[in-house]
Amino acid sequence: MHVGTSVCRSTDVGVLARQQQAMTTLAPGSSRPGAGRALHCRFRGQAPLRYATRMPPLPSNLPQQVATALAEDVGSGDITAELVPATQHVTGRVITREQAILCGRAWVTETFRQLDPTVLVTWHAGDGDRITPNQTLFEISGLARPVLTGERTALNFLQLLSATATAARRYVDAIAGTDCAILDTRKTLPGLRTAQKYAVLQGGAQNHRIGLFDQVLIKENHIAAAGSLSAAIAAGRRAAGSRKVEVEVETLAEFEEALQARPDIILLDEFSLSDMKTAVDINRSKGRPVKIEASGSVTLETVRSVAETGVDYISIGGITKHVRAVDLSMRLEFQATADFNTR
Amino acid sequence: MHVGTSVCRSTDVGVLARQQQAMTTLAPGSSRPGAGRALHCRFRGQAPLRYATRMPPLPSNLPQQVATALAEDVGSGDITAELVPATQHVTGRVITREQAILCGRAWVTETFRQLDPTVLVTWHAGDGDRITPNQTLFEISGLARPVLTGERTALNFLQLLSATATAARRYVDAIAGTDCAILDTRKTLPGLRTAQKYAVLQGGAQNHRIGLFDQVLIKENHIAAAGSLSAAIAAGRRAAGSRKVEVEVETLAEFEEALQARPDIILLDEFSLSDMKTAVDINRSKGRPVKIEASGSVTLETVRSVAETGVDYISIGGITKHVRAVDLSMRLEFQATADFNTR
Repeated sequence: MHVGTSVCRSTDVGVLARQQQAMTTLAPGSSRPGAGRALHCRFRGQAPLRYATRMPPLPSNLPQQVATALAEDVGSGDITAELVPATQHVTGRVITREQAILCGRAWVTETFRQLDPTVLVTWHAGDGDRITPNQTLFEISGLARPVLTGERTALNFLQLLSATATAARRYVDAIAGTDCAILDTRKTLPGLRTAQKYAVLQGGAQNHRIGLFDQVLIKENHIAAAGSLSAAIAAGRRAAGSRKVEVEVETLAEFEEALQARPDIILLDEFSLSDMKTAVDINRSKGRPVKIEASGSVTLETVRSVAETGVDYISIGGITKHVRAVDLSMRLEFQATADFNTR
Repeated sequence: MHVGTSVCRSTDVGVLARQQQAMTTLAPGSSRPGAGRALHCRFRGQAPLRYATRMPPLPSNLPQQVATALAEDVGSGDITAELVPATQHVTGRVITREQAILCGRAWVTETFRQLDPTVLVTWHAGDGDRITPNQTLFEISGLARPVLTGERTALNFLQLLSATATAARRYVDAIAGTDCAILDTRKTLPGLRTAQKYAVLQGGAQNHRIGLFDQVLIKENHIAAAGSLSAAIAAGRRAAGSRKVEVEVETLAEFEEALQARPDIILLDEFSLSDMKTAVDINRSKGRPVKIEASGSVTLETVRSVAETGVDYISIGGITKHVRAVDLSMRLEFQATADFNTR
């Protein structure tokens, strides 16, 4: 499955972001030998088969997420790593023990960069790639101390973000062939919102709003406060500016009322399949003025039947609130140090 | 199951910590009417049946964890909450839809405190309590805007930390009646180490080292670097000072060599049940000079047979690296505002 290798002595996340920009231009199946060379990456043969259609930008707070994770793990210092001579070198590789969608490369590279920028991380798979048991994900070489110190933090990011991408992918695969898209929610792990939103994209799903700031989502409580559904949508439109306005409805009657007020999206909360289909038909009969999202109690078993009602989106809290960490393993080989060689 | 109620208009986490100190002194079944009054908490009837034998201290970085989570969700502002009049009041309650071990009260209270210290959170269950479907966990009242804005962040903490406590409890329950203790690992969610370590304690398990700073854990690589297992343990002892020294071994021969060097704990990595039993017997024949920990591929199905070998500890990565978020729901009721009352 993996067909590309990139070697990165990462100097900063900006470099990684630019590498990703370059990779974005690689259409599946195309071959651009040497395209990544100027970016310290080389591609062998055809580009990796990707699930994400384009590479999303890395979160701007990625370095802070890594710094926070390193701080809580390293604290006043890695007292075990100090047992290893300061000049000791090590090489190693990280494998996956199970099938998954890889995600989190930049968090891994950033972890080692913050500890020691001379640590070399060589990737053999890309974010969004399907990975298979015993596949080498990356090789690492450098001074033993920073490699040992960073191992757990790096793998904690990779096992988590790959888990989120994998969960997203399962839902995306389950509705393959329909016109529906899978969305995430704000049910995320505190402090890891942007990282998980990135992972969702790598799994081939789409992001709902990132937070409370980038979209209006009007619920029952806001409607009660505004006096009516149409008044709430009108107020929401004024507050949103160029941002989207979505309204949640609980009955077909509310759906029809909402449709009159023309929000961008109407969220059907816990609708039966039959009522979803009716809502889709009503919307189509009016020329599809809004997008329709379904939400509530959707599982991997039921998601396809929901998608087949014709709704545009299905949002799934479980993609980000549940985590089934991907099983990873780092295997290291210690090398003779320069000191040893001169003895 | 729940028998205590505490009402807290939280002013700071320090108050919560002091409340917890007070609760620590409540033995199961004891009744101390009014004991919590000075701390703005009241206890009705007997103290809650607790799983954790004593209330662990709250993490010092709890306010920062909450601030980070609020920042990523609220960003430049909750544009939907602004649709609700600034003077609008709301009351509500949060229920659980499934059985679990509750954990994360202080994160919830701190979330609303950071948004608006006048929001009143009244708890009906304590961290470490077993909660049952449709049970009210807490009631909330205050201005609608901060309640609406904080809802998701508060519930994200509560569903996650309750999940971790619940996972810990499942393993603890599985080995009930043995002399073995369940330990967590460093396989945690980045940025949430201290929160998950707290949740593990509330589930009745124990913490392994918090990070790389508070215990020496010597593995194969450190032994290779030091030249021998005994040399590595001796060096580890010097580096550790008063902190514990643990060494990981992969064979019975390594176990016997390690035992000679007297670390505090010996970690049996992927031992067979038979080899674990042999290691326990050897240790006992020498007067139990070390504690023995088992690790690797232990599941809920196999944990009891591992505990019955006589090992002192079993460490389980899955408690913290996997998350099965507890299903929670906030139900709100809007009240007439003072403005409305005067109309």
